[in-house]
Amino acid sequence: MTAFVSVAPELEAANHQYAEHFTAADLPSPPSRLDPAKALGLELGDAHVIRNAGGRAVEAMRSILISQQMLGTREIIVLHHKFSDSEFRTKVRKELNEDVDHMSFLPFSDLRQSVLDDVQLLKKSPLVLNVPITGYIYDVKTGKIEQV
Amino acid sequence: MTAFVSVAPELEAANHQYAEHFTAADLPSPPSRLDPAKALGLELGDAHVIRNAGGRAVEAMRSILISQQMLGTREIIVLHHKFSDSEFRTKVRKELNEDVDHMSFLPFSDLRQSVLDDVQLLKKSPLVLNVPITGYIYDVKTGKIEQV
Repeated sequence: MTAFVSVAPELEAANHQYAEHFTAADLPSPPSRLDPAKALGLELGDAHVIRNAGGRAVEAMRSILISQQMLGTREIIVLHHKFSDSEFRTKVRKELNEDVDHMSFLPFSDLRQSVLDDVQLLKKSPLVLNVPITGYIYDVKTGKIEQV
Repeated sequence: MTAFVSVAPELEAANHQYAEHFTAADLPSPPSRLDPAKALGLELGDAHVIRNAGGRAVEAMRSILISQQMLGTREIIVLHHKFSDSEFRTKVRKELNEDVDHMSFLPFSDLRQSVLDDVQLLKKSPLVLNVPITGYIYDVKTGKIEQV
């Protein structure tokens, strides 16, 4: 068991500053309302940013493994913002005339639970190193992160 | 066939400005040396950014589909930077004592070819809309993008 010091408090302090001057509350929904680097005070080279729809861990496993083994990253921050996909498969079938029942779109209705689930998934995976893993919810209206 | 006007020339112009003032040439390799928003002149809300190790399209398919169908994005930029993984599986087996032969790590030795492959994969996929798709290589030493 190697102990790594978490940078989470630093990120939270940086986000506090960010949220104080946040002005993007009125942005329309599409396409993306989150700039993780700015929201967490990250400079180029500070972090390996992995992004996908909803911020889901299972889609990021390959990249996390590469990040830890090849880039030497030793902390994980899970950051989710709202992603709802009711009737998404039906929409795809109608719009594209394609069946996507074989694909998992990893929706979540409970944001808090989805963060907890992803943190647990990473903590339990034998492929992920024993490093600090912290989960947050990002509020696109205020720019604030809230630890789960 | 719907024609969408590509924003690629705008991104290229923004990158030209970015590269002129680029100062991160001396950053050490880990963990990440690319800020896509800054490098392409993107403001919050301009683009849906999907990121994974190497920028590979196949890992991003779920997110691309969600992005087009739910967020309404109508253009794709593929941006790769160097990612080499010789003996990566061996390293994981040694470090973690875990077998990852079932996982594809999507390495590439030829950066130009990997961009072409991913652009073609997206253009041929029945799940991806017929929108402008442009591929670039990002040079971490200069901050410049080069169209493939």
